[in-house]
Amino acid sequence: MPEPLRVGLAGLGTVGCAVYKLLTEKAEHVAARAGQAIRVQAVAARARDRDRGIDLTGVAWHDDPVELARSPDIDLFVELIGGEGDPAHAAVAAALDAGKPVVSANKALLAAHGVELARLAEDRGATIGFEAAVAGGIPIVKTLREAAAGNRVTRVYGILNGTCNYILTRMEEEGLSFEACLAEAQKLGYAEADPTFDIGGQDSAHKLALLSAVAFATAIDVDSIHLEGISSITTEDLEAAAELGYRIKLLGVARRTDTGIEQRVTPTMVPRNSAIAGVKGVLNAVAIDGDEIGEVMLVGPGAGGSATASAVVSDIVDVARGFRQPPFGIPATDLAPYRRARMRAHEGGYYIRLSLYDRPGAFAAIARRMAEQEISLESIVQKDGRAAQSQTPVARRVVLITHETTELQIRKALEAIESDNHIAAAPQMIRIEAP
Amino acid sequence: MPEPLRVGLAGLGTVGCAVYKLLTEKAEHVAARAGQAIRVQAVAARARDRDRGIDLTGVAWHDDPVELARSPDIDLFVELIGGEGDPAHAAVAAALDAGKPVVSANKALLAAHGVELARLAEDRGATIGFEAAVAGGIPIVKTLREAAAGNRVTRVYGILNGTCNYILTRMEEEGLSFEACLAEAQKLGYAEADPTFDIGGQDSAHKLALLSAVAFATAIDVDSIHLEGISSITTEDLEAAAELGYRIKLLGVARRTDTGIEQRVTPTMVPRNSAIAGVKGVLNAVAIDGDEIGEVMLVGPGAGGSATASAVVSDIVDVARGFRQPPFGIPATDLAPYRRARMRAHEGGYYIRLSLYDRPGAFAAIARRMAEQEISLESIVQKDGRAAQSQTPVARRVVLITHETTELQIRKALEAIESDNHIAAAPQMIRIEAP
Repeated sequence: MPEPLRVGLAGLGTVGCAVYKLLTEKAEHVAARAGQAIRVQAVAARARDRDRGIDLTGVAWHDDPVELARSPDIDLFVELIGGEGDPAHAAVAAALDAGKPVVSANKALLAAHGVELARLAEDRGATIGFEAAVAGGIPIVKTLREAAAGNRVTRVYGILNGTCNYILTRMEEEGLSFEACLAEAQKLGYAEADPTFDIGGQDSAHKLALLSAVAFATAIDVDSIHLEGISSITTEDLEAAAELGYRIKLLGVARRTDTGIEQRVTPTMVPRNSAIAGVKGVLNAVAIDGDEIGEVMLVGPGAGGSATASAVVSDIVDVARGFRQPPFGIPATDLAPYRRARMRAHEGGYYIRLSLYDRPGAFAAIARRMAEQEISLESIVQKDGRAAQSQTPVARRVVLITHETTELQIRKALEAIESDNHIAAAPQMIRIEAP
Repeated sequence: MPEPLRVGLAGLGTVGCAVYKLLTEKAEHVAARAGQAIRVQAVAARARDRDRGIDLTGVAWHDDPVELARSPDIDLFVELIGGEGDPAHAAVAAALDAGKPVVSANKALLAAHGVELARLAEDRGATIGFEAAVAGGIPIVKTLREAAAGNRVTRVYGILNGTCNYILTRMEEEGLSFEACLAEAQKLGYAEADPTFDIGGQDSAHKLALLSAVAFATAIDVDSIHLEGISSITTEDLEAAAELGYRIKLLGVARRTDTGIEQRVTPTMVPRNSAIAGVKGVLNAVAIDGDEIGEVMLVGPGAGGSATASAVVSDIVDVARGFRQPPFGIPATDLAPYRRARMRAHEGGYYIRLSLYDRPGAFAAIARRMAEQEISLESIVQKDGRAAQSQTPVARRVVLITHETTELQIRKALEAIESDNHIAAAPQMIRIEAP
């Protein structure tokens, strides 16, 4: 066997410690698969004296990850610091600049600077492995970049945030409110104290942006992703969805259209009998549609120290095996500029929930506004539901499922409906995604 | 870009033609991902003048695939001939002997000679890509070998034959007999005129043997796989399964146990709400349990020209990118000898269906035989079902679900039950697999 591959590991949080443990406790197992020993030569983290439950005897310590990244004593730099700015950015750039391959789980960094860093890597003969940045233990980057190389991918979509999926699953199964399920998720450690980044959809958006780049060979544009979080979803929506044969999931969807790439992270209705509807709790799932393979779906744990560490180690083993390829599948200089498909051009079915005042002509007005936009309805469910607000006259819940139409038509119809003043609260609108 | 990679393509059936089309019609797309052009330089097939709907102008023709494999004009040999013997075996060996990487979709060849061929490849600095040999477009070989490299895999299991899954899905959903669904599958082209290889489980066994080798770093032993086909499954079994919250799938299961590797291909009950139970029709699915990633499942089309061609092209692109690794993840000389776990040591729950004569003491005898083997029962369903045979006295259907026990205990109990002569037909026994 050749000399060991010397790894510099920056960031000793949950994932960093899990990577360290995996590489030390399973050194022989990993060496057999990598074709050479993998040795953690040096680490960098903030607090040197914190007890992390790992034995760092004989491992060099750096306070500064940039200094570690530049160290001539390491062959590969693993960045598990997090955050899109410095020191993560500076450290990754320094390692690449020195021609060292980088493995990173940092979706924020790559969503913001991925193409620039890929260019630097390719210029210096280095690589960036980022399997761990998207959907934890699910090998979706490898699948898109390598397994689907012969495919023109038309869509990639999935459940990319386990926290949101846990909350929606609990809301549906137990009939609990969003707030109650969020509190429960926080208690169980599935959600951060400040959960904005998860429940607002930003975390999913970072991952989706990276998947889009690989799937469509296009530049990354996380800012253009249409973003809606899950905090507006009510148990009423989940009940109505169930009645109509659907479930609600926070999906990231990226699709190739005639006018560009549509990217959105939104609560989405999926048919109850579809495979993705069956993905529950903190699991993630990603599906790709390719012109040769059809639809392939991968399901597994999307987070957690061990699963993420497994993805990091898979990228390290690839480096040890001598795999060299552009991070996004084709050279970064050849990635197409990102062409955004306008959300108003989105085509699909829609779920609309209205709190309609119970008075003559109200429903007829709704029906007319839909007809004006040439929107046809697949189903209409009216219930003597709870009043949306304690007003008089009483408002009733009306749920509409539309046939395929465009976002522009739906928005126009909903604007007109609001202007008619027959509804007691802003309409709820949830897109339907066909598997 | 470097010189084109010159491919020799042996076998121009459905998959061979699909590979040819993909590589020619998407030459630019593939070249961008491979880092070099991929050119089909020469082909070999039996009938030169058959119209295959592909334009072979400018492509050299060989009648003998072995001659093609040895040709100095090709850099990579793609074997799509099929069959475990010659000419496929001789051609693959010839290419490897000449140091040429091989890509093959031939599960029979690899199940029979995979380790020997891997040794030859490693000795000559060549590789064998066989993603297309297992589960078509699902990248399970890549996932096991590369993505899960840091994991100790404890189990790999899945639906590995689309024909059987189609038949079982139709039987369950339409209440049709096995024979009727097989005839339908043949009409639709999902089953061969001679379907023995699919419905008897041999096709799944070949695939499972290859997955086992990669998952457990062990030699291949297809002959030791415990094999039961689906022809004994009746609509009664499917109905009883549904009542009890299960579905029946033909699963290939390989599991690491204390006494060796257990490998079986059998009709298996899976909980109705599990992800694998939702995999319907001709789809395939493979799940792996790893100590780091937990369970990851991949679902997709398991056969078909395009999906299989996609897998072949993925292996070709890996070669073009310079990926070099032992075919089974670790060097073939280091693969552990295959240690077979005896099927009688299998532990799990069991479904037992009996045609029990309706007479005093019959049920008590069954219960006693179970108790003698210390088998406890999770549920018992007795129905006024159809008599299993037109005999007197009338026989009733009794279905038992056991708690976890061993195969040895179940077999002893069933032998004793048969010897008691209270049953009108041989017992049906189906293993239960927990996801």
